[in-house]
Amino acid sequence: MEMIRLPALRRVAICGGTHGNEMTGVYLVPELERQQKEKGDAAWSVPLTTVLSNPRAIKACSRYIDKDLNRCFTSPILSSPISEDTPYEIQRAQELNSLLGPKGSEDAVDIIIDLHNTTANMGLSIISYEWSNSVCFQIFKHLQDKITNVPVRLVLINVPPVEAFSLESVAKCGVSLEVGPQPQGVVRADIFNIMKQGVDAVLDWTETFNSGKKIEGGEVEVYLMQKSMDYPRDPKTGKPTAAIHPQLQDQDFCLLQRGDPVFLTFSGETLSYEEEEPLHPLFINEAAYYEKGIAFHLARKKTLSFPSIQVKTD
Amino acid sequence: MEMIRLPALRRVAICGGTHGNEMTGVYLVPELERQQKEKGDAAWSVPLTTVLSNPRAIKACSRYIDKDLNRCFTSPILSSPISEDTPYEIQRAQELNSLLGPKGSEDAVDIIIDLHNTTANMGLSIISYEWSNSVCFQIFKHLQDKITNVPVRLVLINVPPVEAFSLESVAKCGVSLEVGPQPQGVVRADIFNIMKQGVDAVLDWTETFNSGKKIEGGEVEVYLMQKSMDYPRDPKTGKPTAAIHPQLQDQDFCLLQRGDPVFLTFSGETLSYEEEEPLHPLFINEAAYYEKGIAFHLARKKTLSFPSIQVKTD
Repeated sequence: MEMIRLPALRRVAICGGTHGNEMTGVYLVPELERQQKEKGDAAWSVPLTTVLSNPRAIKACSRYIDKDLNRCFTSPILSSPISEDTPYEIQRAQELNSLLGPKGSEDAVDIIIDLHNTTANMGLSIISYEWSNSVCFQIFKHLQDKITNVPVRLVLINVPPVEAFSLESVAKCGVSLEVGPQPQGVVRADIFNIMKQGVDAVLDWTETFNSGKKIEGGEVEVYLMQKSMDYPRDPKTGKPTAAIHPQLQDQDFCLLQRGDPVFLTFSGETLSYEEEEPLHPLFINEAAYYEKGIAFHLARKKTLSFPSIQVKTD
Repeated sequence: MEMIRLPALRRVAICGGTHGNEMTGVYLVPELERQQKEKGDAAWSVPLTTVLSNPRAIKACSRYIDKDLNRCFTSPILSSPISEDTPYEIQRAQELNSLLGPKGSEDAVDIIIDLHNTTANMGLSIISYEWSNSVCFQIFKHLQDKITNVPVRLVLINVPPVEAFSLESVAKCGVSLEVGPQPQGVVRADIFNIMKQGVDAVLDWTETFNSGKKIEGGEVEVYLMQKSMDYPRDPKTGKPTAAIHPQLQDQDFCLLQRGDPVFLTFSGETLSYEEEEPLHPLFINEAAYYEKGIAFHLARKKTLSFPSIQVKTD
């Protein structure tokens, strides 16, 4: 099998509260800081930067103040001029890009782990980009091996680097850890513990990699984002006229076939899946997506192989 | 068995969106209006008033704008002078009191059904006041008989009428229908259907009562609110240092005994129930209660009997 060599990892960032009402990160980041204080430099072998990404939204316990921060990390937005009227999240995105990037540069942190929650039944999902490097696949494989009490899946977004919009795209290798279901504004101990396991497993992998050990490649199943489906809406008011069908609710990553029930209108009518291609729905009934016009995303399942990896020594 | 006679019910109000991010009511009230339009006056035998209580909060998809509307229906707040600086919800409470009350007067609507959701695993809970009249108990009994796919329980708040703070206290007989678990900002079809069943059952009961049929009394189990428990908090920041323990999460209405696990701190320590009296927790991990300093309420279970009832004919 192919093998690649990469320099040792020098800096890992763990970010929470990129969305201020996704509470696991909001509580886990301070807990990691507490541990770091308690154990000192010996806590983790790779230097760790912890960040609460959107402090104003965290204080308000809302997703964002002016604009969704996690859509602000495209190259055009990161290089746009700042004035007094610039939305808070654009200013904050540029600050975070200075702290953790600059995006696409040699100075960018090696790994960003951005902690998210969803109201959808997504288990532990790792979200990254289609062009992600093999470190991302390695990390996913390691999490899947380590965490067995909840399904662990990899979701890949297919937009080019310059259009990549989320915080993790600032790092050389960025992943979002998305754990759900958890309501906005709520911290559940079970979800907190899954996220903690996820973060520990990533740090664990970086330690093994830096130790010089060769880590085997292999194959992974991934979900490639294809398109989004909106709710049926009233043409006059723009408001949804249906909810996710009870048979689809909580069934994230199932395979939708033509004719399967998808929506149940408020007057009791069932609406079906009408796409030709069977696809996998995800982020089903995510609270934050009502305003974005998304009832769920649809993804294609694919098997990808990735190379073995070992640290490059000079 | 004792029997009481009451005048026929002349007006029922169904209110949704008293909290703007509790979506079942926000979608069910327009659906009832649609039905009413479709069927005309024949739709329901008792005249129905439908209300979206907090339109500005609904638009913002937040619980409230300035102040929790459902804490604004005390007699002092309803009679306070209004100025430009008066919080929006106080103004709106006075408007609703004019529309549906005045509270405590002969003109008040006979029944208010106020539609709520909770992130807690509360099934279908009917919430009212300890001094509620026998109509409330009758309605509860009817709902419990009719709805069998989810637990139906009655929760009573023990504050006197003048201090009663919630919208339903404006009616001669007021009940909140509280259905959960549902995240804020999300509409789930299963929860929507339970609420629809609940509303249908109440209207059903009013129809039977108005028809002149004697309706038997009986006994009901009720949960009397006793006290609230807050999260353990950091004395410096005021932030929670623990989440609800996984063994307690989603176990609303169980019986907590001294020593039972209640919280799990973010560093992994279990904290136990330390009250002398075993009590029943409810609204466990409700998102909206973090800012109110409530991790859950505690209630005492009691059996109450209530009389038969029949319409009074002159």
